[in-house]
Amino acid sequence: MRRDEALTRLETLGFGGRDAAALVDHFADAEARGKQGHGFSRVAWLETLPDLDAAARPELVVDEPGYQLWDGHGALGYLVLRAVVDEQLETAPRARLVVARRCFPTGVLGYWVRRLAEEGLVSALTATSPPRLAHPDGGEPLAGTNPLAIGIPSSDGRPLVSDVSMGKVTYGDVLRGAATLDDLVPFGGEQAHKAFALALGLQLLVDALAGDGYGAVLVVASPEADPVPELRARAAGVRLPGDG
Amino acid sequence: MRRDEALTRLETLGFGGRDAAALVDHFADAEARGKQGHGFSRVAWLETLPDLDAAARPELVVDEPGYQLWDGHGALGYLVLRAVVDEQLETAPRARLVVARRCFPTGVLGYWVRRLAEEGLVSALTATSPPRLAHPDGGEPLAGTNPLAIGIPSSDGRPLVSDVSMGKVTYGDVLRGAATLDDLVPFGGEQAHKAFALALGLQLLVDALAGDGYGAVLVVASPEADPVPELRARAAGVRLPGDG
Repeated sequence: MRRDEALTRLETLGFGGRDAAALVDHFADAEARGKQGHGFSRVAWLETLPDLDAAARPELVVDEPGYQLWDGHGALGYLVLRAVVDEQLETAPRARLVVARRCFPTGVLGYWVRRLAEEGLVSALTATSPPRLAHPDGGEPLAGTNPLAIGIPSSDGRPLVSDVSMGKVTYGDVLRGAATLDDLVPFGGEQAHKAFALALGLQLLVDALAGDGYGAVLVVASPEADPVPELRARAAGVRLPGDG
Repeated sequence: MRRDEALTRLETLGFGGRDAAALVDHFADAEARGKQGHGFSRVAWLETLPDLDAAARPELVVDEPGYQLWDGHGALGYLVLRAVVDEQLETAPRARLVVARRCFPTGVLGYWVRRLAEEGLVSALTATSPPRLAHPDGGEPLAGTNPLAIGIPSSDGRPLVSDVSMGKVTYGDVLRGAATLDDLVPFGGEQAHKAFALALGLQLLVDALAGDGYGAVLVVASPEADPVPELRARAAGVRLPGDG
């Protein structure tokens, strides 16, 4: 699928021009970074969602110093996070915990923290998704793949973006047929209990702060220091997380 | 080593009764949870530190709604985090980002988030330590084992505590001879690049917010929901992170 076709199909689903363009930007960025499971294949997936409400708008329901609570109100998580990120860029807080309830799906979390880092803000973001990871010892799936993404601005113009899903593969990989549901286990092999513990901890962090439904938690702050250039010098050519 | 001996040796190092007791509590809790690398063996290690300043006191240097910056001022990280946690318990913020600069060593991070969770606060905590993890493709060590600990209160009195180091083994395991430096690699086997990316992302998060030296970053908040009891019911006997 190309950009034009994606835009047309999203507009057919009822998305306005600005929203459709934001979705296409997200999918195109995912494709460019080799994350096809979060790319244009998601347009066909959106077409299958029974409750899609293209007119829904996220709302900032609590806004206190250092804390914001957003409600997705049925909007796609991508568009909730776009609104959240736009608000952080506009207000550039010294430090803020942002909770987004009813915020799904959220796509590539690295995309959002990169936007913040490119504008000079430090951030860490996690989000929940349907339970797909079971404890390595067995039992039913208890945790989503719940990624943790961290974005750090850099004075050299190349932010560091770490974005790690706790699954051995992503659900997007399963959707596009590149992996099977059997591969959807915590990463780590013999130490998969560690990735499981991370996935479960992040999930309960979101659940405790956002309540029922899938949600996201973002920590955003203005930096006190600029550690990335020195790290890149020490790394001496080793590929760092998020580098193209 | 027993509790009494540890207390005596810490007092010989110059720690006052309350500080020595706090350190012993931390080490004893680590031993009880099977984390011997963070247990009483640390007393002998403290005795080897050339710059130990038992009289140093952490200071809260910035205190704004939703944000606190602490400076360890040469105090042991354990005692810095004790002061930080005591302050959070006293003030029970709706949401706060707490940065502690010059805060090392910090011990078992799960210990601190458990204390917060037992008193009803949600938290996530990470801390930096000397670089010991290299990229799986090679090069010099770039990241500490930088754990991420998450604590979630529960109305059933059994908080969930997830505490994951990004190393295959801990440096404490090396200190006590249970592992070698060669084992000190990112966990995850074939997917060790994921644990490396987490370790590096967390490290730069702390570095960007705390500046030079080892530090810690804590997010603490009051919960909106109580997800742990339902999770325990679904888990149906599977051992969850942090359970004894």
